[in-house]
Amino acid sequence: MTFDSLEALRAACIDLPSGDEDAAKAVASRQVTLTKPPGSLGRLEDIAAWLARWQGRAMPRLENVHVIVFAGSHGVTARGVSAYPAEVTGQMVANFSVGGAAINQLARAAGATLSVVALEVDKPTADFTVAPAMDDAAFLTAVSAGHDALPENTDLLCLGEMGIGNTTAAAAIAAGLFGGGAERWTGRGTGVDDAGLRRKVEAIDVGLKHHAPALADPLLLAAALGGRELAAIFGATLAARRRGVPVLLDGFVCTAAAAPLARLHHAGLAHAIAAHVSAEAGHRGLLAALDMQPLLDLGMRLGEASGACLAVNIVRSALECHARMASFAEAGVSEH
Amino acid sequence: MTFDSLEALRAACIDLPSGDEDAAKAVASRQVTLTKPPGSLGRLEDIAAWLARWQGRAMPRLENVHVIVFAGSHGVTARGVSAYPAEVTGQMVANFSVGGAAINQLARAAGATLSVVALEVDKPTADFTVAPAMDDAAFLTAVSAGHDALPENTDLLCLGEMGIGNTTAAAAIAAGLFGGGAERWTGRGTGVDDAGLRRKVEAIDVGLKHHAPALADPLLLAAALGGRELAAIFGATLAARRRGVPVLLDGFVCTAAAAPLARLHHAGLAHAIAAHVSAEAGHRGLLAALDMQPLLDLGMRLGEASGACLAVNIVRSALECHARMASFAEAGVSEH
Repeated sequence: MTFDSLEALRAACIDLPSGDEDAAKAVASRQVTLTKPPGSLGRLEDIAAWLARWQGRAMPRLENVHVIVFAGSHGVTARGVSAYPAEVTGQMVANFSVGGAAINQLARAAGATLSVVALEVDKPTADFTVAPAMDDAAFLTAVSAGHDALPENTDLLCLGEMGIGNTTAAAAIAAGLFGGGAERWTGRGTGVDDAGLRRKVEAIDVGLKHHAPALADPLLLAAALGGRELAAIFGATLAARRRGVPVLLDGFVCTAAAAPLARLHHAGLAHAIAAHVSAEAGHRGLLAALDMQPLLDLGMRLGEASGACLAVNIVRSALECHARMASFAEAGVSEH
Repeated sequence: MTFDSLEALRAACIDLPSGDEDAAKAVASRQVTLTKPPGSLGRLEDIAAWLARWQGRAMPRLENVHVIVFAGSHGVTARGVSAYPAEVTGQMVANFSVGGAAINQLARAAGATLSVVALEVDKPTADFTVAPAMDDAAFLTAVSAGHDALPENTDLLCLGEMGIGNTTAAAAIAAGLFGGGAERWTGRGTGVDDAGLRRKVEAIDVGLKHHAPALADPLLLAAALGGRELAAIFGATLAARRRGVPVLLDGFVCTAAAAPLARLHHAGLAHAIAAHVSAEAGHRGLLAALDMQPLLDLGMRLGEASGACLAVNIVRSALECHARMASFAEAGVSEH
């Protein structure tokens, strides 16, 4: 595996490339020549510069847009924290493989290639209320799997997940990283009822207490409270940074999975954009804690990279405008 | 022309089809069977039902997505209300025709066909501070041009505009319809400076005072304070309603142009979605006054239907999910 110790992984997370400032500046210089009032394309202009900075190309490209959905199973489901039975994780992986899920339609509509990486779905992590979800080896295996799942020549990476019980893991990670206790971060996930929501909050508070010594270390925290698909998202986010690939993060679980990187490096998620803010209770607060402004706010709460995929065409549109608009001089349009 | 009197136009605006309730219900019935937690696609689910209701098809289609940009010239530009000279309107129409503008790139990225309808661009409307921008005949000609510009077999219509000075006209219409005076609705448009902003507010307040007797009638108001491209957007929005075509409205000018229809009929804009909220100062308040929730909020303020086009792929994605996802039964996925 790519990372055979927490120390090696930690070193990689601290030594991150800082992006291509010249490429970003080249975008800004070109933008002001294009036939529109300066700044009038709003975030589309920022997106063009962001692509350039993290791809390291003054003229970015989006030929290969890749979506990876990581799936994993969670021992904490034994605590009755989800509206759906744990076997749905494997059933949905099968649904992905035959093209029946939302993400299959959304990836196609985005012109993106979809990979699904199932991480020992028939072997749940430990119930974090009584033990670390993963020991170091299991955590590093999952991080490495995510790191190695990034295809060559990817121009833009969309990350997402499937895992019954994983909003419980995500809320626990968010609470561990940013404080405030379980209540602040816990929502209804796939639609748990009031009793289930109480069980979920209780499980997270128990987990936070049980793993209190690990909470100061973002990696130990992610191993103790997370899950394989969350660890893999962390690994893929790290790989993207190291290999010059901008990232679109999906919803609450995906953001929580990537968040430890922002704790290990002050600009650890600078190459990632929050594609949307989901309807899951903790997501808006988590994005605020990470100082990330979501592109979309459509009340979605499905996961699967669905929100990330939906943002791809916005990124494509930003690049199309940047690459192909005429300048004032070319078009013979008067300036101010 | 289609409407040869204000009375004929008014009658058409009051006698609007109410949409296909059965088609919308069929969408809702299908949505709950699809492999996702109920409601988890958020607004994408609403969009599928909205397409069905206004197309009158239980299974909507998006084969022909059409973008129309109407262009017009404004006499009020003589008051120094814009950051750009008035001739830019015609120059940008030429830029549209050779594919150099933002909307050309955005329409292509949306898989949409673009039409540009220039409405006597070399003949500005009257300066509304001293006379009605258009007399009845000029207004009806522009409304009819918009009404007749809707192509046969359109499945979704994106509306937009180009017209130096037209955020002044739009703010005047918004103020006339919803009150609060010019200050409440006036922004910097393409980027006018502080002195220009003051001239703009003053021109609008003078116009509102001058045309006070017309303000109680949404059609007279639109003729007195609007412009040809705004009247055409009004006409196209009306035509879409009458012919079963859902509409994506663009920014502040486009929304203000369509707004009189909501004043003439309580659900006059039910077939239209606000594609985005622009950075132009008055737009958020105008959408609130119309009880419309924008799909996107990306700080854009270009017009040209740019925000409407950007929302097309969200609508497409909503339909793809609705039409092509597997049901729980088909995929063998357990329900609650």
